[in-house]
Amino acid sequence: MEGEIYNISVMKIYFAGSITGGRDDSELYLEIIKLLKNYGNVLTEHVGNDKLTQMGEKISDKEIYERDIAWVKESDVLIAEVTHPSFGVGIEISRATEFKKKVICIYRDKEGKRLSAMISGCPGVLVFKYQKIEELIEFFSKNL
Amino acid sequence: MEGEIYNISVMKIYFAGSITGGRDDSELYLEIIKLLKNYGNVLTEHVGNDKLTQMGEKISDKEIYERDIAWVKESDVLIAEVTHPSFGVGIEISRATEFKKKVICIYRDKEGKRLSAMISGCPGVLVFKYQKIEELIEFFSKNL
Repeated sequence: MEGEIYNISVMKIYFAGSITGGRDDSELYLEIIKLLKNYGNVLTEHVGNDKLTQMGEKISDKEIYERDIAWVKESDVLIAEVTHPSFGVGIEISRATEFKKKVICIYRDKEGKRLSAMISGCPGVLVFKYQKIEELIEFFSKNL
Repeated sequence: MEGEIYNISVMKIYFAGSITGGRDDSELYLEIIKLLKNYGNVLTEHVGNDKLTQMGEKISDKEIYERDIAWVKESDVLIAEVTHPSFGVGIEISRATEFKKKVICIYRDKEGKRLSAMISGCPGVLVFKYQKIEELIEFFSKNL
């Protein structure tokens, strides 16, 4: 139809992973971000950057906080990798539920470890346990 | 004066420390809780219990979440020991700032480590860096 306007909205994804809590999983974060980019715009691509160390970013803490919370607010869905404990990821999950966002936590189960009850008991948070990236591919295809 | 009613309100303190994130500091938490009991009623005494392991408590995750958030709401001040990363403590700090509570984070600085920007950059959060319990005694006497 002539003059028709197509309003294709791209899903905005906030990916949350540990930074100052530890960078052991940064390669995995990068793989997950690559998968997520098939579904929308990942606002937090820097989380998978292998040059980003535990010492964090070069902007001030207040600027980081304000930027990240603005991104949480702007996002359609927050996906958090929650195998390694992190204050920042906890705060982002809490804010996302406060803003009524869709929240998905992905977690690699290990013997002798348990996911925080403050995440698995939090209303509005969906937890998906996985071991291999292939399981995430299938999970994302069904849930995003 | 005859018939006068004394309304002595006791400060309610929410002490936050890592549980599923790791119990390395549980003895320190116990010492801090002992100090805090000089200033009011500590709602979360179980955080310092040396029998409480990383596997958590015996009630359901939903019950833990609901109880803890109700305590955050009820408290006058939240004091979090934030040396070890923890999702639960991050969520508790976030909720406490949402409820406009006084929030104090105490932190032991270590070389090569940095406190999460999501805590130090969060409006309404006071961070106190310390090394020894004696510094906490003085800090609490001035700030509680």
